[in-house]
Amino acid sequence: MKISPTTVYLVGAGPGDPDLITVRGMELLRSGDVIVYDRLIAQELLLQRRTGAELINVGKAPGKPSIPQEEINQILIDRALQGKRVVRLKGGDPFVFGRGGEEQEACREAGVRCIVVPGVSSALAAPASIGIPVTYREKSRHFVVVTAHSNGTGQNMDYSALAAIDTLVILMGRTRLAEMCRSLIVAGKNPDTPAACVEWATTRKQKMTAGALHSIAELADREGLRAPVVTIIGEVAAMAQPGNCELRPEWSSFDSLWPISRDWGEYQ
Amino acid sequence: MKISPTTVYLVGAGPGDPDLITVRGMELLRSGDVIVYDRLIAQELLLQRRTGAELINVGKAPGKPSIPQEEINQILIDRALQGKRVVRLKGGDPFVFGRGGEEQEACREAGVRCIVVPGVSSALAAPASIGIPVTYREKSRHFVVVTAHSNGTGQNMDYSALAAIDTLVILMGRTRLAEMCRSLIVAGKNPDTPAACVEWATTRKQKMTAGALHSIAELADREGLRAPVVTIIGEVAAMAQPGNCELRPEWSSFDSLWPISRDWGEYQ
Repeated sequence: MKISPTTVYLVGAGPGDPDLITVRGMELLRSGDVIVYDRLIAQELLLQRRTGAELINVGKAPGKPSIPQEEINQILIDRALQGKRVVRLKGGDPFVFGRGGEEQEACREAGVRCIVVPGVSSALAAPASIGIPVTYREKSRHFVVVTAHSNGTGQNMDYSALAAIDTLVILMGRTRLAEMCRSLIVAGKNPDTPAACVEWATTRKQKMTAGALHSIAELADREGLRAPVVTIIGEVAAMAQPGNCELRPEWSSFDSLWPISRDWGEYQ
Repeated sequence: MKISPTTVYLVGAGPGDPDLITVRGMELLRSGDVIVYDRLIAQELLLQRRTGAELINVGKAPGKPSIPQEEINQILIDRALQGKRVVRLKGGDPFVFGRGGEEQEACREAGVRCIVVPGVSSALAAPASIGIPVTYREKSRHFVVVTAHSNGTGQNMDYSALAAIDTLVILMGRTRLAEMCRSLIVAGKNPDTPAACVEWATTRKQKMTAGALHSIAELADREGLRAPVVTIIGEVAAMAQPGNCELRPEWSSFDSLWPISRDWGEYQ
């Protein structure tokens, strides 16, 4: 494979709270020549770019057509081939939905080096933000992460299989939530299974509601929860507690801790 | 609920690479009075503790008995009730296996405030470290994360359900990998489904092998892959490429970027 002198970094921006980007992601954000970013990343992160860095917003605005994936791929490749360090900042983790895999493939095919810097996914952070662990002894031995968006396949979901997994985490499923819950019940999931929804998890806009599989879609409607929403279905959802698990307390008091000395010594 | 003046922070240390801790996690690590840590975290992280911070290793050493969970819970609670800021540093994400949920519950019951700071889970970072996206258009609409360790339940796994999910990520399953692969095949999973194993993902010790569901356990044996290992089973595993997706390149050149100014302005 041809190795390009320059690189596209697929960087996970984390679930919402800008402090949940990784140290490595922050470094890259601060060093990139070009920052190509999505709509749902914490906008405060963009303040970290270096002077003169080019900012390119490829997010889909509500009600507007999205930029075709091929066009985004081409932006990444073109800039990299111009000798620039490209930071592709993606919400959550670059490889959990959001088509990071396709961007990696496009780079590979164009002979551009592509490096993935994983991030904190909303699939884990949104449940955690309301106190729900996705695994728990005797309650959740496995969890499945799924989106309600059609993901480019014509195939129907196997709801029987989904219903048999201890914990379901549904990303981006707000508009189809009621339909998915019905399908899970039809497939044999107990309608009384605890369920919870959280909107804008890990941000100050965070809002939640909790109930059961049979009621959660209606509760989300009643509470006015809108996208971006994450839904958790399973025994662990009974542990949901608003406020007990705040994610951004007293953080401004930490500024004196910087800079971080990063002399890791002989890293193995 | 009684609010304690002090707090236990359950902090995800990330999957191995110390730079994959979050900015928030690093802050807490640098400010904690007590750092209670597991065996598999990047040991370099401990260098970041403040002078005088107490270090408590609660990791299970190979061949030695593990510290009972109740004892770990008590350490966290006792230190917090002494008025200390306790940082519980857990490998990966605190709520993906590893019993973070139980630590949170124990704190709640003792009236100690518990705050979760999500981390990058190996469940996502290990596949990414060898170029595998856990979701991919037309190949993976959902993924399930499971451990081969018994997780405190006497119940058998529903392998038919697991087999029907597009992508499986198996954590900590090295010794039972062959048995799990056989069970998946018996449950109807195509034996030719691509599969890959990665050991010590995101560290310099990282090693991988790739094959198919019917061969991966034997390949892992032949290559001498030992715990900690993550196994990925599904069409996306065919995208595995060692070296193409290095996670820790040229990082030492970034030291000049610090400190990070973290004036996020009016954070919403």
